[in-house]
Amino acid sequence: MVVLKAASPPVPSVNKINNGFPCSNGTIKPLITPSPSSFINLDQGDPEVFRAYWRKKSEECTVVINGEDLMSYLSDTSNVCWFMLPELREAIQRLHRVVGNASAGIDKHIVVGTGSTQLFQAALFALSPSDSPIPINVVAASPYYSEYKDEVEILRSGLYRWGGDAREYDKNEEYIEVVTAPNNPCGSIRRAVANCEGEGKVIHDLAYYWPQYTPVTQQYDHDLMLFTFSKCTGHAGSRIGWAIVKDIEVARKMTRFIHMSSIGVSKESQTRVAKIIGVICDSYQEIGSSLDPDELFFEYSRRKLRERWEKLRAVVDKSNLFSLAKYPKAYCTFTNHTSESYPAFAWMKCKGSIEDCESYLRNLKVLVRGGKRFGVDQKYARVSLLSSDDVFNEFLTRISNATRNRE
Amino acid sequence: MVVLKAASPPVPSVNKINNGFPCSNGTIKPLITPSPSSFINLDQGDPEVFRAYWRKKSEECTVVINGEDLMSYLSDTSNVCWFMLPELREAIQRLHRVVGNASAGIDKHIVVGTGSTQLFQAALFALSPSDSPIPINVVAASPYYSEYKDEVEILRSGLYRWGGDAREYDKNEEYIEVVTAPNNPCGSIRRAVANCEGEGKVIHDLAYYWPQYTPVTQQYDHDLMLFTFSKCTGHAGSRIGWAIVKDIEVARKMTRFIHMSSIGVSKESQTRVAKIIGVICDSYQEIGSSLDPDELFFEYSRRKLRERWEKLRAVVDKSNLFSLAKYPKAYCTFTNHTSESYPAFAWMKCKGSIEDCESYLRNLKVLVRGGKRFGVDQKYARVSLLSSDDVFNEFLTRISNATRNRE
Repeated sequence: MVVLKAASPPVPSVNKINNGFPCSNGTIKPLITPSPSSFINLDQGDPEVFRAYWRKKSEECTVVINGEDLMSYLSDTSNVCWFMLPELREAIQRLHRVVGNASAGIDKHIVVGTGSTQLFQAALFALSPSDSPIPINVVAASPYYSEYKDEVEILRSGLYRWGGDAREYDKNEEYIEVVTAPNNPCGSIRRAVANCEGEGKVIHDLAYYWPQYTPVTQQYDHDLMLFTFSKCTGHAGSRIGWAIVKDIEVARKMTRFIHMSSIGVSKESQTRVAKIIGVICDSYQEIGSSLDPDELFFEYSRRKLRERWEKLRAVVDKSNLFSLAKYPKAYCTFTNHTSESYPAFAWMKCKGSIEDCESYLRNLKVLVRGGKRFGVDQKYARVSLLSSDDVFNEFLTRISNATRNRE
Repeated sequence: MVVLKAASPPVPSVNKINNGFPCSNGTIKPLITPSPSSFINLDQGDPEVFRAYWRKKSEECTVVINGEDLMSYLSDTSNVCWFMLPELREAIQRLHRVVGNASAGIDKHIVVGTGSTQLFQAALFALSPSDSPIPINVVAASPYYSEYKDEVEILRSGLYRWGGDAREYDKNEEYIEVVTAPNNPCGSIRRAVANCEGEGKVIHDLAYYWPQYTPVTQQYDHDLMLFTFSKCTGHAGSRIGWAIVKDIEVARKMTRFIHMSSIGVSKESQTRVAKIIGVICDSYQEIGSSLDPDELFFEYSRRKLRERWEKLRAVVDKSNLFSLAKYPKAYCTFTNHTSESYPAFAWMKCKGSIEDCESYLRNLKVLVRGGKRFGVDQKYARVSLLSSDDVFNEFLTRISNATRNRE
């Protein structure tokens, strides 16, 4: 068996400053219909996979915004989060009631953000002691979401600093632990793990805790939970996330951060997200609507991801190149069925002599994110399963071909 | 003459953490039709004054967004600012060509942000030396925009810190000077003033450099210029700002900051802003369109502000309570006329025995922002002139009555 090195392709110099997002050299473009010689980008999780569903629901979800609409900075001055449209708050509460994944009742405070990225930083600001001379440590169990570290460190804040892997944290100091459940990159369900004498506060990043990715096993009721519309429905361009917060003072400080950071959040996006959530909830609450499962968003999206996982596992099982984790089955209170997880990313481990999974796939002209970015070994890489069908199928073709070439 | 103290009204406790923006106590609400006993809020610059114009242009400016539109994180991977829609970039370039206030040609890089607030912070990140052990000083000449200091200090960054009044800055260290022209709060045209041996970089905040507020006397061509749609047209809820940047590396770092801060900017807002800019530019470029000046946005908005300033000066001139600055006339290359400035805020100075302008006006149930927040004496206060007609007229009534009560 010979380890094949692909003949030097014109590998684009991925601009590290952009963390794999494209930069001005223009060489890395997302391809809807890739040719065998082109790079395919499975590095970011740009959610193309659900687009066909929204095309079917195109008109039902249409929003019309007139010239004089949504002009004010203010939305609801009776609410802690004064820039959040009341219809968005109500839509978010309704969605969590319908799905049953998180408690977002009237005893909770909801804060809207420009994606959950902004809310993560708002949460760090809100949970950091304002009177401490030393920054609080922010930790997460590896493999952790690749952006947390950079988001914590980018401004060299005196309020907080990156503290590394939560499992290795043993300082007798206050800390903030970020728990991502299901986890990005690896899809497993997580709990807080930091085990030390210091007092810990927890941010629960539940971006992927939706029925298409994982069985909804319980209604979470944590102190601070983050969600993003990008992963819930695939509308990443809207940049809408929300936090569900128990403590009003934390919600107030998060609101203050978003005020200082951007004086609120796009109302056009807020009104559109409220509309789309309404369409989803209506479809589940209308009598008889469940006759065609493909009409129901979470059924459609779960089927799409299940099919991709089945195809991927079939290819990987035949291959001697990679392995994939197995996920335990669980009873989903939303679907009333027992099922597996179908995570948004495949967390692939290279086998045998392949030491660097990202580089290996780059030689196949597949851009992915290597394990080092997630705090673990470079034998691992995260591969987005949210691309368009064509890109996903091209990915399968390339790893099938690579398997054959090694035989 | 007796200094009247208003009989203790139920003064709301303005939540200082929100810098005058409302908080959850619900007592400070923007009133469209105020009653004589209610508080009126002229603290923030919420731009209600132009709404009637956009109501007339309601349908012309309508955007329709379907379910599957604008879903991706990505917009234009050939551009430094990969999350900016190409139609927005072209609209911004066209608007600056039509107005002639800034050079935004193809040799410049445009970076879109969630309001110019986010871009200000992106600019601080981009201009701060990344390899320096001490933070760079950020200075502005007083009276300076009240939010700069808090925005610089909120995360106790190790990259930059607040350095105070630019005129008093005399350290032999690198610095960043923020030049706001026309200035917020006082409306005067500004240039960089810091005069020291250190090397200075300048951020030009040109939020109000539009023909309704001030004569356009030249096409600015600075290294880094910030604009916001909120003040250009009054669409504050869209949270769209843009930076015009000469140095591609600075544009790249700003893009990186916005990536880390919020993975881009709402596409719904971007597409709507592009549409509205198109309507404005079309109206100026269509032959014969100038027959009714009220059809043209900048003519309409300048007339509105001129009328307000004339009414305000008439009331203030009769009063022994306040004084207002005079602005020099200048030739506007956009209107081809010589005219005064009509700033978005009145920078009022209390006369005689009144020591605290903000408190004095609060007793009249008028919420404004006191001089201390702008780095100067509390005899000054900033009063928004961008409210609805009813609120503006109620403000005039209250200061007229206060004048009479003192006589």
